[in-house]
Amino acid sequence: MPNAPTAPLNAAPQAIDSERYRRGLAKLREIDGEAGERVVSSLADIAPDFARYLIEFPFGDIYSRPGLDLRSREIAVVAALTAMGTAAPQLKVHLHAALNVGVTREEVVEIIMQMAVYAGFPAALNGLAVAREVFGEAST
Amino acid sequence: MPNAPTAPLNAAPQAIDSERYRRGLAKLREIDGEAGERVVSSLADIAPDFARYLIEFPFGDIYSRPGLDLRSREIAVVAALTAMGTAAPQLKVHLHAALNVGVTREEVVEIIMQMAVYAGFPAALNGLAVAREVFGEAST
Amino acid sequence: MPNAPTAPLNAAPQAIDSERYRRGLAKLREIDGEAGERVVSSLADIAPDFARYLIEFPFGDIYSRPGLDLRSREIAVVAALTAMGTAAPQLKVHLHAALNVGVTREEVVEIIMQMAVYAGFPAALNGLAVAREVFGEAST
Amino acid sequence: MPNAPTAPLNAAPQAIDSERYRRGLAKLREIDGEAGERVVSSLADIAPDFARYLIEFPFGDIYSRPGLDLRSREIAVVAALTAMGTAAPQLKVHLHAALNVGVTREEVVEIIMQMAVYAGFPAALNGLAVAREVFGEAST
Amino acid sequence: MPNAPTAPLNAAPQAIDSERYRRGLAKLREIDGEAGERVVSSLADIAPDFARYLIEFPFGDIYSRPGLDLRSREIAVVAALTAMGTAAPQLKVHLHAALNVGVTREEVVEIIMQMAVYAGFPAALNGLAVAREVFGEAST
Amino acid sequence: MPNAPTAPLNAAPQAIDSERYRRGLAKLREIDGEAGERVVSSLADIAPDFARYLIEFPFGDIYSRPGLDLRSREIAVVAALTAMGTAAPQLKVHLHAALNVGVTREEVVEIIMQMAVYAGFPAALNGLAVAREVFGEAST
Repeated sequence: MPNAPTAPLNAAPQAIDSERYRRGLAKLREIDGEAGERVVSSLADIAPDFARYLIEFPFGDIYSRPGLDLRSREIAVVAALTAMGTAAPQLKVHLHAALNVGVTREEVVEIIMQMAVYAGFPAALNGLAVAREVFGEAST
Repeated sequence: MPNAPTAPLNAAPQAIDSERYRRGLAKLREIDGEAGERVVSSLADIAPDFARYLIEFPFGDIYSRPGLDLRSREIAVVAALTAMGTAAPQLKVHLHAALNVGVTREEVVEIIMQMAVYAGFPAALNGLAVAREVFGEAST
Repeated sequence: MPNAPTAPLNAAPQAIDSERYRRGLAKLREIDGEAGERVVSSLADIAPDFARYLIEFPFGDIYSRPGLDLRSREIAVVAALTAMGTAAPQLKVHLHAALNVGVTREEVVEIIMQMAVYAGFPAALNGLAVAREVFGEAST
Repeated sequence: MPNAPTAPLNAAPQAIDSERYRRGLAKLREIDGEAGERVVSSLADIAPDFARYLIEFPFGDIYSRPGLDLRSREIAVVAALTAMGTAAPQLKVHLHAALNVGVTREEVVEIIMQMAVYAGFPAALNGLAVAREVFGEAST
Repeated sequence: MPNAPTAPLNAAPQAIDSERYRRGLAKLREIDGEAGERVVSSLADIAPDFARYLIEFPFGDIYSRPGLDLRSREIAVVAALTAMGTAAPQLKVHLHAALNVGVTREEVVEIIMQMAVYAGFPAALNGLAVAREVFGEAST
Repeated sequence: MPNAPTAPLNAAPQAIDSERYRRGLAKLREIDGEAGERVVSSLADIAPDFARYLIEFPFGDIYSRPGLDLRSREIAVVAALTAMGTAAPQLKVHLHAALNVGVTREEVVEIIMQMAVYAGFPAALNGLAVAREVFGEAST
């Protein structure tokens, strides 16, 4: 695999897609802040194109759609990642994101607790453990 | 297993828990309408106590909590069940529930589409297939 | 793929492994009865070697081990398949198996109900739906 | 939700992305044939934009990449969908796709059998059931 | 989220439910010993009500039911958590619990090995890694 | 559980199965190299029979079959373990194995990226994190 030099995030990688990329990068920054950019940067050495797809499809296409507000989108994502139980690092990023777009800590805890009903108590307990970590970081 | 005569849903099965049961039954009816009652009734022959737990814990305890509005709770549940991919009958009930508590069809589609990002395109495609079924039933 | 003629189940396919195969076939019949043999027969056209592995490894090796009684093994399998939620046909076979080796209907219902705690209410509800089907078949 | 008139698949929905869309549609036809187009068409009433994303991201972006041949991509997808156990309709489409791009029936059976090791015998048995269905359709 | 002062575990949080809570707390101590109480205590800062639900529903309701002995319940839980593969911390607690209620180490290993058949070798290998850790702790 | 003295790997544990065991051990060494042997050795204290099954069934039976080349088998396994998201230690072993049997680093990255489509972006991101670790080890 070529050890590609890390392009700066605000360089559009393909002229034809530059609008999706710019829109996605702006949305990523709005939602995930630094945590999102760190995920993208961490891909530069191993899968730089995947960093581009991550900006373009989830953020440039999906999160940018007008049909559902960001608060509702993050409620959906926190619920899904908690229930799946296979995505602790991503749950951490999206707990920060949920707080960023106006979900309160109390609401985050309610969402995770509700997952005990649908995915079992272990899924909720593990989700609460990630939330404790995020709340600790967010308050410093 | 005793083939227990089906008790009417509004009979409180244990004096001590009657408050949780009544609160849960009212909440179940508010959220899931007839679909929820059908799930509960269908348990009467095989696991009547499980029908009681279903009313008491998810509905009497969790859904009755003040910290998160019902609309947000149903967004969370639709997202989680779509992402898990193992709960089509329950997703169907909760798509009806989501529409009941004010989530629009367009928003339902957005929530399911977003799951393509977190649980893959098959999860979203299968979720949309359930939504098409529910939308067809709801409009008749 | 060659459309192999279906060998009778009691023909040992490889001389060297005949002991494991015979032991596994006897164990399969003890536990799963006809349902198990139907699974094996159904593989004859598409994957006859997989039918052999299914007899040799799960039944000839694992189920034949002395360290855990069959009743406990079937309790474990019913619990796991209910919790996984992706194996309804196999759960059906193993609910018959559990009844065959002495787990009562009431205990089967208890095991499935307990999965609500660990894998969520949908997993338990879907497990109970399979149990209702099996109980109906078993009582005729 | 607006009941959008189904646009013909070869109409580019957004001028800016037309190159990805055309590339994706050609790739979808090459890999999945009619089965893929049926999936896309079926989304026209409920989520027409999702049909577009399905063509653009998986097929226009991922499948069109030069770094891995189509045969290897379909081996990977058949393995993953079999192991996940939550995507039977998509496994069916991709078993057709695997045969289309040169994976033999014997190899398909080997891939699915191998999943018994990594995801358990039920996952492999359920995958073989889908394969039997696909082989029956393909030979008519 | 209010940083609630941690109530002592033996304080009944709601008069109406005190019987379920007391029964559940006694059952938790019988089964999980200190490990269970640590889980409950760890929730006091972030989700004190969830600690209460955990005592009331799984332990006060489910584990307290007469229809299945504790040994069988823990066999079911160890099997399910091993097969799910998303609940290592809870598997650890329940391996201790299984030993507490009379499942032997040899039987624990048999249960986990059996999961290789139903959930794949990785699930069993990861379960055995947790068991090794628990056996090490239990013997000191 | 008896603390069995670790038998050397090349000792055939059962005369009747010695051919499968020898074939499996040779295949394990061809595919997984030292990493595979470490997995097997680590089982010696807790589940020595499971080490034997691991050599006999996956390697002596499945990997030794002529119907699919080793490169394709490892593509299938890397895809499945990435998609499942519950088997990071095993994914690590099989990323080494994939490189051993001729899958290039670029191809490994393509396989993992493709899983974003079928199992979601978190599954692919977590797979890439394991790949980065393996590529770092392999290049020293």
